[in-house]
Amino acid sequence: MQLHLERGSGLALHRQIETQIRGLIESGVLDAGSRLPPTRELAQTLGVNRATVTTAYDALVASGLVEATVGRGTEVLGRGAAPRPGVTVVPGSAPDWASVLASNIERRSAFADAFMPQDRTRGRLDFTSLVPDEQFFPVDRLRKCLDEVMRRDGASLLQYGPPAGYEPFRALLAHRMRLVGMQVDASDVLVVNGAQQGLDLFCRALLDPGDAVAVESPTYGNLLPVLRLHRAEGIPVPMTPEGVDLDALAQVLATRRVKFLYTMPHFQNPTGITSTPLHRKRLLELAARHALTILEDGYEEDLRWDGGEMLPLRALDTTGRVCYLGTFSKGLVPGFRVGWLVAHRDLLGYLAALKRNTDYHTSLVLQAALAEFCRRGDYDAHLRRLRRTYRTRMQAAQRAFETHLPATARWRVPQGGYCLWVELPDRVDFDELDARLRHDGVHVTAGRHFFLGEPPYGCFRMSISRVDVDGIESGIAIVGKHLREMIRAESRPAPRAARPYV
Amino acid sequence: MQLHLERGSGLALHRQIETQIRGLIESGVLDAGSRLPPTRELAQTLGVNRATVTTAYDALVASGLVEATVGRGTEVLGRGAAPRPGVTVVPGSAPDWASVLASNIERRSAFADAFMPQDRTRGRLDFTSLVPDEQFFPVDRLRKCLDEVMRRDGASLLQYGPPAGYEPFRALLAHRMRLVGMQVDASDVLVVNGAQQGLDLFCRALLDPGDAVAVESPTYGNLLPVLRLHRAEGIPVPMTPEGVDLDALAQVLATRRVKFLYTMPHFQNPTGITSTPLHRKRLLELAARHALTILEDGYEEDLRWDGGEMLPLRALDTTGRVCYLGTFSKGLVPGFRVGWLVAHRDLLGYLAALKRNTDYHTSLVLQAALAEFCRRGDYDAHLRRLRRTYRTRMQAAQRAFETHLPATARWRVPQGGYCLWVELPDRVDFDELDARLRHDGVHVTAGRHFFLGEPPYGCFRMSISRVDVDGIESGIAIVGKHLREMIRAESRPAPRAARPYV
Repeated sequence: MQLHLERGSGLALHRQIETQIRGLIESGVLDAGSRLPPTRELAQTLGVNRATVTTAYDALVASGLVEATVGRGTEVLGRGAAPRPGVTVVPGSAPDWASVLASNIERRSAFADAFMPQDRTRGRLDFTSLVPDEQFFPVDRLRKCLDEVMRRDGASLLQYGPPAGYEPFRALLAHRMRLVGMQVDASDVLVVNGAQQGLDLFCRALLDPGDAVAVESPTYGNLLPVLRLHRAEGIPVPMTPEGVDLDALAQVLATRRVKFLYTMPHFQNPTGITSTPLHRKRLLELAARHALTILEDGYEEDLRWDGGEMLPLRALDTTGRVCYLGTFSKGLVPGFRVGWLVAHRDLLGYLAALKRNTDYHTSLVLQAALAEFCRRGDYDAHLRRLRRTYRTRMQAAQRAFETHLPATARWRVPQGGYCLWVELPDRVDFDELDARLRHDGVHVTAGRHFFLGEPPYGCFRMSISRVDVDGIESGIAIVGKHLREMIRAESRPAPRAARPYV
Repeated sequence: MQLHLERGSGLALHRQIETQIRGLIESGVLDAGSRLPPTRELAQTLGVNRATVTTAYDALVASGLVEATVGRGTEVLGRGAAPRPGVTVVPGSAPDWASVLASNIERRSAFADAFMPQDRTRGRLDFTSLVPDEQFFPVDRLRKCLDEVMRRDGASLLQYGPPAGYEPFRALLAHRMRLVGMQVDASDVLVVNGAQQGLDLFCRALLDPGDAVAVESPTYGNLLPVLRLHRAEGIPVPMTPEGVDLDALAQVLATRRVKFLYTMPHFQNPTGITSTPLHRKRLLELAARHALTILEDGYEEDLRWDGGEMLPLRALDTTGRVCYLGTFSKGLVPGFRVGWLVAHRDLLGYLAALKRNTDYHTSLVLQAALAEFCRRGDYDAHLRRLRRTYRTRMQAAQRAFETHLPATARWRVPQGGYCLWVELPDRVDFDELDARLRHDGVHVTAGRHFFLGEPPYGCFRMSISRVDVDGIESGIAIVGKHLREMIRAESRPAPRAARPYV
């Protein structure tokens, strides 16, 4: 039993002894039945008066943690069983939290259960996760940036800061947004704790219970519980290969008051679709006619592996009706929990007030370190490295789909991001396919995570964020093998050639 | 004009030139009227084909940022005026955000305007701020902890993590809570972005619009906008020198369904009152009789400058009805934005689900660095240093109040924390006093920031967190001088001796 006493700490020595032994018991280092050393011996070891140890032991006895018996010494009774000395336990039973949360327990459970599965340990070929691959994290460069900003501005970065964000970081984000065509400056940018907080704050600002939000169908799975949390109604609008179905959206807008449209024009999650320039123009015209607010989620926009640059909706919009959500979680690291919102200033002021009431502001240290990382050019260098790797992975996926998938399956390999999307032939049941895939160690994400109701067709998402070229090839080969077997079992003619999704 | 081209970056050279010049214009480095270098000259400087530069200039002309005139070269027109090349501006006017936010604009404005003033630059004697003094921040030790955990576990700390918090940090917090008598382990602890997020999550979990919450009166000013945000009704219960008025609370509980009581038993903000052990026992008995949930805010609990240890309510409660909110913002640094909630496991699971939908989780890097900081004993050492400093400041405040304040004023110097509380004699108007104090460079916080309605008596708070002993003495002397003058102006007999608040 090792104790460390600190003289002049302000805490009496007997209290230090008592507290540390309590800690050893409560943490399980000292089991029930083990013996404390005799008071005389411990007093010698620690160089304290024996009475000091006796006082400490008495307090432990009084608290019921140990028992002193003549002839057997002082024995540990067990951990966590007894309240502290001086504690008068007040009678009463535990609250029934289900009833405390009662009035909306159903809604609340519904959203709490709706998370995406994100178990990173399962399966040797894990295509489920949009979690970026930590083998590419620029750990050392980020560490150096943290160290640099703490050396330079430590005291002020550890102080309270402005709710809208650390000014140099806001300016840097605005600069990056200008490089993709947005007419914005720092005062149009709000720093948030990752895109998830941006979504939640945006919903808190705009939504009242019962409000309608138009969402792409399929869409980002983690949006759906946020809508339920706000008691908003999601109205699904189907995706086409060019982007969200504008005719269907026009019909919705003609009949319903929609608070906003949530859209991912780049490398949509889960389909990988990037909407065309013409589609973007027509969407904005439609929005203007219906005074529709748009929340554009640019979550993988930095992750373009192939093809030309495409301007975000926010760059095409001069009215301020498009708000833009950005994140470092996919292109850099998720663990900083830093993202940003671009919004019209009238709205941004309100969002910043919400942010202040929600958690005051995002850590200045992290904002300053990211600003330093970008300023040094490390972020752009990192994106270039990712591009080389993922271009190769996407090409491997393309070849593997062409080689292994039956013609009746449809698939999409996007120009950026991490998502592959597969639509199953009519009679193939996803759950059966999924069971077969899991048996062979291949894990994909069921399409139902991306729809408000039941998916209208069999489908699933494969993320290549954490699977290398070999894994992609063998994973897709296994998918193809089972698909063909299941189609044969349906006694339909064997397929000959694959066809792409569009 | 300095440009840096990067070959093999994937971005065409003419686009790099265009983008960088655009950046210089938009950031104001190149003013309206300045000239771009001739294409031939820039091509030579950069070592590129002249056509590359011409293409870039053409794009800038097309975008309306520069103008090419024969004989005058290429001239900058101004920044931010024009959309990017290829951008078809979609017609339409800006949304009226007031109407987008309309259905609850009144509620929403009300809470957005209700912030505490926190302008740190004003006044030479600033007693307004509960912001800790950055001259005491252990910047270098925190920097070393950040560096250490990034070296040791960087990749995993930069990855997504568990919504409830980084496990070693939760275990450490639970250990610290056990040292103040709570029977908890890591699974009872939720890590949040400072106490403010803890408050908001707790309200989100428990409150529906129209619900009632009992609050001490006066109470923590930043709680009130959170209640308004949740459309909850705050029910004020007066403070007594022993703690919240239990008779008044019993009356409220007898007539209203109250979702929870928000209380600060230690060094209450703003009054500095610490409730007595007997009061704590009676409060828990009352809570048991009425099945009342309690949110105990322990925000300055580590900041005890004098007097003996006092167990928190959560340590006296074995039913789980008391939830506890802790923070590092006052005792260490606010800029990390890290706090924690202790709650019954049934509730904690729900709070963690809310946290996940709100911002996924708190940065693992910050949690790991704080865990390392505590593990090294640096936090306890820091608290010991603070104790020495603030004990001296509190003693100075005590002497200054006794020396300078008139007998008809009541004041309180607490045993810990940063808050001094002054109640004015009947006929002294706070606003007039405040104007006089500001004129003399002394800034205090008006009592009305801490009440749900108008304060029932004249009062103000003085925080000594950022004022040294000399400042405390002169500040209180100035308060005393104006109070005496204002009392004399009321033609009442001159006061002779001060009397303390209790």
